[in-house]
Amino acid sequence: MAKKADKTRARLPRGFVDRHASDIRAVDEMCAKIREVYERYGFDPVETPIFEYTDALGKFLPDQDRPNEGVFSVQDDDEQWLSLRYDLTAPLARHVAENFNDIQLPYRTYRAGYVFRNEKPGPGRFRQFMQFDADTVGAPGVAADAEMCMMMADVMEALGIARGDYVIRVNNRKVLDGVMEAIGVTDEAQKLTVLRSLDKFDKVGREGVAELLTSGRRDESGDFTPGANLPGSAAEKLLRLFQRPEIISGEEENLAVKFGDAVAQFSLTWKQYLQSFKVNGEPVFASGDTGQVDIAWTIPISLALADPVGDPTSGFVGVSELLAIYTQIQAAGYGEDRINIDPSVVRGLEYYTGPVFEAELTAEIPNEKGEIVRFGSVGGGGRYDGLVSRFRGQPVPATGFSIGVSRLATALKNLGKLGQDPVLPPVLITVMDGDTEAMAKYQQFTQALRAAGIRAEMYQGNWKKFGNQLKYADRRGSPLAIIQGADERANGEVQIKDLIEGKKLSAEIESNEEWREARVAQLTVSEDELVETVRKMLAAQAGGAA
Amino acid sequence: MAKKADKTRARLPRGFVDRHASDIRAVDEMCAKIREVYERYGFDPVETPIFEYTDALGKFLPDQDRPNEGVFSVQDDDEQWLSLRYDLTAPLARHVAENFNDIQLPYRTYRAGYVFRNEKPGPGRFRQFMQFDADTVGAPGVAADAEMCMMMADVMEALGIARGDYVIRVNNRKVLDGVMEAIGVTDEAQKLTVLRSLDKFDKVGREGVAELLTSGRRDESGDFTPGANLPGSAAEKLLRLFQRPEIISGEEENLAVKFGDAVAQFSLTWKQYLQSFKVNGEPVFASGDTGQVDIAWTIPISLALADPVGDPTSGFVGVSELLAIYTQIQAAGYGEDRINIDPSVVRGLEYYTGPVFEAELTAEIPNEKGEIVRFGSVGGGGRYDGLVSRFRGQPVPATGFSIGVSRLATALKNLGKLGQDPVLPPVLITVMDGDTEAMAKYQQFTQALRAAGIRAEMYQGNWKKFGNQLKYADRRGSPLAIIQGADERANGEVQIKDLIEGKKLSAEIESNEEWREARVAQLTVSEDELVETVRKMLAAQAGGAA
Repeated sequence: MAKKADKTRARLPRGFVDRHASDIRAVDEMCAKIREVYERYGFDPVETPIFEYTDALGKFLPDQDRPNEGVFSVQDDDEQWLSLRYDLTAPLARHVAENFNDIQLPYRTYRAGYVFRNEKPGPGRFRQFMQFDADTVGAPGVAADAEMCMMMADVMEALGIARGDYVIRVNNRKVLDGVMEAIGVTDEAQKLTVLRSLDKFDKVGREGVAELLTSGRRDESGDFTPGANLPGSAAEKLLRLFQRPEIISGEEENLAVKFGDAVAQFSLTWKQYLQSFKVNGEPVFASGDTGQVDIAWTIPISLALADPVGDPTSGFVGVSELLAIYTQIQAAGYGEDRINIDPSVVRGLEYYTGPVFEAELTAEIPNEKGEIVRFGSVGGGGRYDGLVSRFRGQPVPATGFSIGVSRLATALKNLGKLGQDPVLPPVLITVMDGDTEAMAKYQQFTQALRAAGIRAEMYQGNWKKFGNQLKYADRRGSPLAIIQGADERANGEVQIKDLIEGKKLSAEIESNEEWREARVAQLTVSEDELVETVRKMLAAQAGGAA
Repeated sequence: MAKKADKTRARLPRGFVDRHASDIRAVDEMCAKIREVYERYGFDPVETPIFEYTDALGKFLPDQDRPNEGVFSVQDDDEQWLSLRYDLTAPLARHVAENFNDIQLPYRTYRAGYVFRNEKPGPGRFRQFMQFDADTVGAPGVAADAEMCMMMADVMEALGIARGDYVIRVNNRKVLDGVMEAIGVTDEAQKLTVLRSLDKFDKVGREGVAELLTSGRRDESGDFTPGANLPGSAAEKLLRLFQRPEIISGEEENLAVKFGDAVAQFSLTWKQYLQSFKVNGEPVFASGDTGQVDIAWTIPISLALADPVGDPTSGFVGVSELLAIYTQIQAAGYGEDRINIDPSVVRGLEYYTGPVFEAELTAEIPNEKGEIVRFGSVGGGGRYDGLVSRFRGQPVPATGFSIGVSRLATALKNLGKLGQDPVLPPVLITVMDGDTEAMAKYQQFTQALRAAGIRAEMYQGNWKKFGNQLKYADRRGSPLAIIQGADERANGEVQIKDLIEGKKLSAEIESNEEWREARVAQLTVSEDELVETVRKMLAAQAGGAA
């Protein structure tokens, strides 16, 4: 082999990682818990390959020679461009469109898999990571969106995240569209700029968003991001959406609301206020007595929709859908401690057409540097009624969400919620002699233990230095070592060394001689008794550890 | 969305497949069983990303502008070429070499994952498929190879393949190397041609291989494959390896062996014959009384090594290693009904340096066309002492094997060994009314069932045609349907329809009226009793089906 004088340098590609046993087992355990929730909700698995035709992915059309911006792309021998999927939603849309006549709608499926981003790698930015999605295709009503929100909440709790340490935040793109229309933003490009600006609230804060919505913002590094060029009053209405109001009065008298230090006065009672929401002349709220505090989220929206320049209808439709979601999840027992309606949720992706939701960890968690931070989003989704129709030309309503498995695993690890490696290291059968008879014996012991369901391995390195074998057992955490030299073999006996107990004792025993004389934590039994004795010693260790 | 007049055509990339629920669940179940065996043998998981630097994959060096032959490759923004892994062994070698100082040898790991081949797609030839590998790196002795063979046998049985329906066939590259040296083949390129010719035995038969070893072969389509240009006598020695001998005599008198119709006479007794195998002057067989039949596989090898033109030593070393493996697996209870030594096993890959093994299904299995065929290889592996040293310049012995999961799944499916979809379809909560109160009720019932651990879903399609809901339930195989119209809601009641029982009865009941009057397989209970009644009805269905 190594004929070439110049050796190949072994190196992981930039932006990719090797995963180790504890991480793999923990993520497997996580995925099993997520899957259990999805299955209980009546979803079934379906899986697409990692490649799609580039044009089917939608946003990355092959207008360049190598359409490699953001995605990894290769050209097939028939000249068609293929790209690695960058999410699991676009491939699902292709799958449904391609098999439309064979698929029974509504089509309720889930899938876990790696997705790929061809981005400049950086600290904590990976080019391959895992998502775990669930989607319902062919579901026109918000009942399906409400179900998604409840399922996300159940997933969080199935993963051991306590109620109160997470929240599912729900909004509706129609609310944002309505507000944009109402303040006179009708150009698609400007709308996108507005959405992107709002989506940066967590990073740049209220002041930063205000700059991005108007004249633009220069960041600390000196880079300038052009603004959406809205007038200040329009920006102010959008910024309303980030404010959580507190109702001061309104039950009997005119509604008064507190936003931080500011107070807003209405010329209506709470009941009249709620009844003022209308779509096609019909009031959105069936009755005005839904209570005050729970749907106070309508207040920032109504303020943003007030005194419209354009048509605010879409905003009211959005509110009515959010209210339907709200009523359904309340009835099913999912209160504000799990699911919150929050009109400031944007979600970056362009393709959402209705309700959008985000799962956020609210617990403060130590990050890699040990700093305590609010971890933020670990998944999200929404309604994407246009994604399948790209292929079909007929509307196919759909809604779904995606859990960022790799990201959530980091959060759970930092929260101490990911189980320590639950697999016991194997019993080590050491090798004292290399002749045919001895080796056959060691294999025989090893297989006898395995056949009894006991995790076991024979030492497979260079056995001639016995010290290396014990060092190996130590680093591996082997619970027991099996030893048979020529004398024991002649007597049909084996030694069993309790390495866990031995480690404890060796911490106590000072001198080497004392150690040897004690011959502690070591038994000699006949070969026939090996399996049974090992089983008992492992049980004793497990009991001792408990 | 669908603004473009020309719709995108939804199509799966050529050579790739979408996977459905029953396949995904079956393969998950398979992988869990394989993993259980690997874990019991003391292996731990490790995973590498799907990309490697192209030069690290070894055989596909970027000497072309786009090194896309056989692998999928992309060029990174720093000009380095990346390729999708085509197996799981080359990435493991890179991983070990890169982390050599942190890794405790012997390093015993397993991994399941997709691998990719950029080949012309054809029927049954896929460009993405799954492998499940186990490897021990840093294991110089054949004890590690013996362990691999036993583990492969255990995997087959864990998957439900009966003893006798599979066999692990073992050979040693050193035997083949020794025979080639002995007959005077020393050129590396010619050696490869010889190995490739031998590897085609299953496809082209004895005559075909004889042609490929000598003057070349023209197949039925008229295509000509050039031969290895061996003299006929040399080819004859190689062809010996495919012959299974039967010992006629040799215990007391001179050894006589039958190959089919032909008889070979030796001038030695069996005992003397065995003692004639020597490496460095030492006899390979410790004693001559190992028995006759079990190691009759040595006979074709000795005939192929007889009257050497070149140095046959490597062949004897190979035999001695095979004998050590043979002794160890016998001692551990793995007889010829599980593991066979077979000097004709080649394995295609170039990088093997010692023992090679192949898991073969011997059972005759109906294929996709219903023809009964011997399925053949479902996995294999061997010793690859040179693969890590490509990066390190120092020898790092290693051995391992790979299960072709996708291929094995097909075999198990055809054998009827892959469980039918074990997951019960969800209970369907139908939707009779779309008003806020009704929808809230339906969500509430659904969540109550789920909270009790019962798989349930609310109908999420267009609910206005109730017939569509029942059709959905039927195609989905829903066991029960929950129905609540306005009247029931007013009474706080729900109907539960037993769809399994209903289907049986509807086959028996003729007229529509009779059906309606019978109101069979349908209960009305109070909302409070819903969960408990559903639980009982599901239990009754499960009992009835058993």
